[in-house]
Amino acid sequence: MGDYREMWKGLNVDLEKHDILCSALPEQFGEIYLKQENRPEGMNYFNYVVAEVHGARIMELENARKEGRKVIGTFCVFVPDEIILAANAISVGLCGGSQFWIEDGEKVLPKNLCPLIKAFTGAKVSRTCPYFQSCDLLIGETTCDGKKKAWEILNDYTPVHVMELPQMKRTQNYELWVEEIKLLIERIEELTGNKVTVEALKEAVIINNRKRRALKRLYDLRKNTPSPISGLDSLLISQIAFYDDPKRFIEKVNELCDELEERVKTMKPSGKKRIMVTGTPMALPNWKLHSIVEGLDAEIVVEETCTGTRYFENEVAEDGETMDEILKNLADRYMGVNCACFTPNEGRIEDVLRYAKEYNVDGVINYNLSFCHTYGVEYNKVEKALKDSNIPVIMIETDYSEGDTGQIKTRVEAFLEMI
Amino acid sequence: MGDYREMWKGLNVDLEKHDILCSALPEQFGEIYLKQENRPEGMNYFNYVVAEVHGARIMELENARKEGRKVIGTFCVFVPDEIILAANAISVGLCGGSQFWIEDGEKVLPKNLCPLIKAFTGAKVSRTCPYFQSCDLLIGETTCDGKKKAWEILNDYTPVHVMELPQMKRTQNYELWVEEIKLLIERIEELTGNKVTVEALKEAVIINNRKRRALKRLYDLRKNTPSPISGLDSLLISQIAFYDDPKRFIEKVNELCDELEERVKTMKPSGKKRIMVTGTPMALPNWKLHSIVEGLDAEIVVEETCTGTRYFENEVAEDGETMDEILKNLADRYMGVNCACFTPNEGRIEDVLRYAKEYNVDGVINYNLSFCHTYGVEYNKVEKALKDSNIPVIMIETDYSEGDTGQIKTRVEAFLEMI
Ligand code: SF4
Ligand code: SF4
Repeated sequence: MGDYREMWKGLNVDLEKHDILCSALPEQFGEIYLKQENRPEGMNYFNYVVAEVHGARIMELENARKEGRKVIGTFCVFVPDEIILAANAISVGLCGGSQFWIEDGEKVLPKNLCPLIKAFTGAKVSRTCPYFQSCDLLIGETTCDGKKKAWEILNDYTPVHVMELPQMKRTQNYELWVEEIKLLIERIEELTGNKVTVEALKEAVIINNRKRRALKRLYDLRKNTPSPISGLDSLLISQIAFYDDPKRFIEKVNELCDELEERVKTMKPSGKKRIMVTGTPMALPNWKLHSIVEGLDAEIVVEETCTGTRYFENEVAEDGETMDEILKNLADRYMGVNCACFTPNEGRIEDVLRYAKEYNVDGVINYNLSFCHTYGVEYNKVEKALKDSNIPVIMIETDYSEGDTGQIKTRVEAFLEMI
Repeated sequence: MGDYREMWKGLNVDLEKHDILCSALPEQFGEIYLKQENRPEGMNYFNYVVAEVHGARIMELENARKEGRKVIGTFCVFVPDEIILAANAISVGLCGGSQFWIEDGEKVLPKNLCPLIKAFTGAKVSRTCPYFQSCDLLIGETTCDGKKKAWEILNDYTPVHVMELPQMKRTQNYELWVEEIKLLIERIEELTGNKVTVEALKEAVIINNRKRRALKRLYDLRKNTPSPISGLDSLLISQIAFYDDPKRFIEKVNELCDELEERVKTMKPSGKKRIMVTGTPMALPNWKLHSIVEGLDAEIVVEETCTGTRYFENEVAEDGETMDEILKNLADRYMGVNCACFTPNEGRIEDVLRYAKEYNVDGVINYNLSFCHTYGVEYNKVEKALKDSNIPVIMIETDYSEGDTGQIKTRVEAFLEMI
């Protein structure tokens, strides 16, 4: 710990405030995670990652920076990590999931904004997140109004490069995204001094696909009844995917999956209701909905969210040989993500219906972070499609505070009884 | 009135519900508008337009449609009316400003969405707005998340063509907007069966510029101390600009300005505080803030909003001779609008500071429709810039309901005393 304090100080972390943040996490994690029964052995690595969330991983980033590598913060599954990797830089996902940061976020942002945006902004403004403090550059994108405008404020604190994400999925939009990726390459080459070569990019594509495949393997295992892993544990792995070292992460997820494959051979029916969560992302340490649902007699078996299937579904084609081909393959894969920020976004409805079948779910919880307009409005279509297919669904809109936990529990309980 | 009922019925208006809507307006208008003292004679025309809002103007649209002309509904100052005009179609602005429609809007949209979006959606869903019922096509745009996603729902009720508005103002974005205008032309040519010719477009550019110039003339007159016209009356004119016959409107505004020019020669100091309103639009009949402010001892002398300067500032260059030149001129003018939906949007800050000087204001009210994220977040920059220039500013965030009127009055009163 002594080492870390020096390191945090060097990163200009507000130490006193940061102590408060750090003191809350172990208890919360113990209460929600460690108390689960019969967890896979393979979760030990991920427990360790959480325990060392502001320690060992930050130290790794520090060491890499000492060697001249750059650290780049991202906020969205649309930013192609492949580019960052290919420039020998390190990518860390910075979406904030803690209520702790809301107060500082609200100093510069309206109160009635999505908690994710308030949290990550508060994290930077308050200098209490060593990941933010380690970043040499942030990459924003124009996915939603709140984020689009928050970059302007963040930019007062630290440099932000903003990518303009198209709002539709017509041919011309795919071409536009290629152009935006090219601009990203320019900016990152400038920052790192490294050239993004065809070779490096091909390799980055392969690594990131392996990461997607590992997560896909985990999710496929959850299709078993019962699932060999809790929704809480799967969510944690998805959250860690955003900032862990990719190669180690892939290895650890695959080790876990080996174990889970053995498990499914001997698992007995649990009688638990199988739930899909669809909607907005759950950034670390936002475990609120999962802990409520799995505290009742149900298991979450799939998340159709950015901290779920949207992060790993669809691989980048590996057949690109020239820069243009690879960039086209990248754009095709990323533009294939069915985020509510697109209009129309019928692909998401198809995904939700397909997952409902594939994961054999009994009901769907549409999770919406408060004031998220894109997913909030799109619920109209999601609800209609699910009802037409006789799949029960409820909408839970909430933020990071604990004030409505009891009320959500009551609603979920009633929902589980009904389905 | 008998005639109108038949007409409304033919438009598939929900007559019973529409009666309720119609019965409230005259009293509200009388209370807020007709009670003002010493109004210009030239306001009589605009009073008449309001009195006949669902009557005479709808009849005009009906007659035009009988002659084969098409009526096209728009929601945003970014949609180039010139194209609609050049195809010999009629453009009507459909933004909803009445609390009446909120309830129906909330049947298909989240409650915590901007009232403007809920109102126009409710107007269509409830079939109580004869303008909506008269439209052969709606033109949406991707300005903000709420609108972008609301088109998908409106599209279940009536055809909507969506234009993708760029989110930045780089060279490539200007080019993109040209492409979007071309797609709009295609769609409107298909609908109307009329070709958008260079000649027709040149003429439309000239007419719309005349309309901008008339409004600019009105606003310039408000720079006098005291202003020869109330903020309420000016706002009404801006609101009517969106759906009145353009040529008649230009004539009537200019007649009014002639009268106001005479007025300023004999006006005596009123001692009233001069207020700028900046922020989100106020669609008909949203007179809430203006009636509160002018009910106290102050006058609103300029609105930096879409129902204010953003609607008429900057003309389309009239030197275009080829289709490409004219489209470029159109894109340049429209992309020049400093809306908070762009990132960054420094031009708006410059506008606000410039208007504060030009209109010699004592203070600024930043008006935000509830849950409008783009303008809500941008307030951070607006506030900073105004404070740096020692111009007092307050933020009023509100919707169309009357619940908070007393509270807003108290806050504005305190603000006026302070400045
Ligand atoms: S949850 Fe919604 S509002 Fe929040 S960052 Fe994501 S898209 Fe934006
Ligand atoms: S006021 Fe804001 S939220 Fe409402 S339509 Fe306009 S930009 Fe969208």
